[in-house]
Amino acid sequence: MKRNVLIIGAGGVAHVVAHKCAQNNDILGDIHIASRTLEKCESIVGSVRQSESLAANGELQAHSLDAMDIAAAEALIRKTGAEIVINVGSAFVNMSVLSACISTGAAYIDTAIHEEPSKVCETPPWYANYEWKRRGECERAHVTAILGAGFDPGVVNAYARLARDEYFDRIDSIDIIDINAGSHGRYFATNFDPEINFREFTGRVWSWQEGKWISNRMFEVGKEWDLPVVGRQKAYLTGHDEVHSLSQLLGVPTVRFWMGFGEHYINVFNVLNNLGLLSEQPLTTAEGLEVVPLKVVKAALPDPSSLAPGYKGKTCIGDLVRGVKNGQEREIFIYNVADHEEAFKEVGSQGISYTAGVPAAAAAILVATGRWDIGRMANVEELPPRPFLGLLGQLGLPSHISEGEDDRELLFP
Amino acid sequence: MKRNVLIIGAGGVAHVVAHKCAQNNDILGDIHIASRTLEKCESIVGSVRQSESLAANGELQAHSLDAMDIAAAEALIRKTGAEIVINVGSAFVNMSVLSACISTGAAYIDTAIHEEPSKVCETPPWYANYEWKRRGECERAHVTAILGAGFDPGVVNAYARLARDEYFDRIDSIDIIDINAGSHGRYFATNFDPEINFREFTGRVWSWQEGKWISNRMFEVGKEWDLPVVGRQKAYLTGHDEVHSLSQLLGVPTVRFWMGFGEHYINVFNVLNNLGLLSEQPLTTAEGLEVVPLKVVKAALPDPSSLAPGYKGKTCIGDLVRGVKNGQEREIFIYNVADHEEAFKEVGSQGISYTAGVPAAAAAILVATGRWDIGRMANVEELPPRPFLGLLGQLGLPSHISEGEDDRELLFP
Repeated sequence: MKRNVLIIGAGGVAHVVAHKCAQNNDILGDIHIASRTLEKCESIVGSVRQSESLAANGELQAHSLDAMDIAAAEALIRKTGAEIVINVGSAFVNMSVLSACISTGAAYIDTAIHEEPSKVCETPPWYANYEWKRRGECERAHVTAILGAGFDPGVVNAYARLARDEYFDRIDSIDIIDINAGSHGRYFATNFDPEINFREFTGRVWSWQEGKWISNRMFEVGKEWDLPVVGRQKAYLTGHDEVHSLSQLLGVPTVRFWMGFGEHYINVFNVLNNLGLLSEQPLTTAEGLEVVPLKVVKAALPDPSSLAPGYKGKTCIGDLVRGVKNGQEREIFIYNVADHEEAFKEVGSQGISYTAGVPAAAAAILVATGRWDIGRMANVEELPPRPFLGLLGQLGLPSHISEGEDDRELLFP
Repeated sequence: MKRNVLIIGAGGVAHVVAHKCAQNNDILGDIHIASRTLEKCESIVGSVRQSESLAANGELQAHSLDAMDIAAAEALIRKTGAEIVINVGSAFVNMSVLSACISTGAAYIDTAIHEEPSKVCETPPWYANYEWKRRGECERAHVTAILGAGFDPGVVNAYARLARDEYFDRIDSIDIIDINAGSHGRYFATNFDPEINFREFTGRVWSWQEGKWISNRMFEVGKEWDLPVVGRQKAYLTGHDEVHSLSQLLGVPTVRFWMGFGEHYINVFNVLNNLGLLSEQPLTTAEGLEVVPLKVVKAALPDPSSLAPGYKGKTCIGDLVRGVKNGQEREIFIYNVADHEEAFKEVGSQGISYTAGVPAAAAAILVATGRWDIGRMANVEELPPRPFLGLLGQLGLPSHISEGEDDRELLFP
């Protein structure tokens, strides 16, 4: 049984992870939160204490850490006695945090693929550029490393695995659809780190179609979907982490990711992108200051966690899976609907942070209880989906399945 | 007779001023160009030499100068023997350059009101905040200082004075309308320094209506005008330098400035402005770098002088004046139409730089020949308009008048 958790990062997702870990600290043990800015960690600790949600007595501590510094991360893992590290910091720190886990023997969990600050839109499959190169290291060190254990990637990978195991003899296509039908009431904001958010769209957009990588421009391919609860919504073909792992690990010929965008978002994105303000490459001002425009845009935009109090409406994220079962063509949609206001009531966060953070905490619980403590590196679709999806139902993210006229909650007794 | 000119600045307007001064160096003497970046000055010198337009033998030299440094500016004025300084650098350097002129006795000419980097939209009338406080200094030193001698402000002020002197017994309103019906073919660009351009619109927009200052938001008040050559065009109430001087110096109850904008410009402006990216106040990035967003936007946008080669179409800028003459209501429009391609053919610049730069060179010629060498500070509407407008006709900016069905060129024999 692994215990004691170190959460790296102090943004909106970290806030949710901390709350959910605290609600389960009878299983997880001490909870530590570390990021570059100590005050942000302290604010999360304060929020958890105020909610009085700790399931048992135990440590709950904030720490300052530059997670790019492997030695500092190792020292903090040792000092806190953490056996599970949940990395929900910037996607730039994945490899350094993983290194610290491998050298200390701590389990590693993240929710997004590694990125290098100076590169966008690398060669597919993205996981092969950084994470999968280190499978051998993890295996030799018997270190559990669970990649992409948020909602998407994460829960949607488990949906895909569940579909393959239980609903299909052959899957022809998986379309992952992510719709946020909520409204934050601001002129413009991204729902998670603007830097990571925009980097998904400024380069080429990769999808896996009929066994080949296809590249498009962002917003080039759009499609209206009619989904449970949120209704008809326009979504666009987008590059996303899980396309890169599912295409390689499940043997499905077509995997696409569709993200919903309103016209206003697209307009703002296009203006900023066309002006070069979303570039990760530095420019020099007339005064000689070198600066990355995207980092300035990030600083100007609202902090995603600040959106929580006024956020209204629901999200719907799921996998539309098409294939054959018992010789019959079949189409199912496995999905979750989350509510921004309910997330705020429970943990003080908006729904996007909630859906990304709860699964990471669930993964930690499964590692702590041994169900997912596999002593090697794995993406979520390589792990048994039932314990994960069952636990998520208990933690606030129930799964549903819709097939033809039938629509019901999925239970995992 | 004052001779030898020092041009401060090396942007698009300075380029035009240098060409026009060179074409008249038989009157103006040596021509010196100074700015922070020596290479930009050298590039202008190269362009002038290539055009072989020098009217006589004489010096044509580039210099490096930080125009915020009064002592350095004084030293350069003395070293070059310049008796006329044409300040077409950033609007932030006006006061330091004026100081250097007062202490050395050189005549001072500029084309835009002084601005402090950290302030936008100061209390009207703007000239009273900086320039007019120094009228006494100029008078005591017998220094000629001509404020706002571009097109708008500048030529439009002379049009207003001409209207008062020759066309009206009483003026009720002056509407200055500035339409650029040209196209540069880029996604987005400003026609002069983006920093100065955007600063005009991010704060409140002041107009002088029935003897009172009225403040609006930018793009709050729009109106379609039907103008010669460029036709029907939408323009918006904008704060502009000349509203601040004309309101005080001509005794006209209503002075408004209208600038034409297309929907695309307004959309880009609104996105950037609503996101806070046009702010002159510094923000701090997640990495701790302090940076003024507006300066980053400026660095990302095309250099206005780079627009010249592909620029097509025409500008129309003029004064719509309403009032009474001989007991009859009267309405006239005094205006100029300039052509981007013709400006490029003549001096390698786009039309906006051309219309701003030619009048500054004309003012220098009038100072050199004594017509405008008044030994005190004045806005253009305080000076005799006929020599100025007549000279502009010879230099490439003829004036026209439209009244009812009548439309003709104004000649000043």
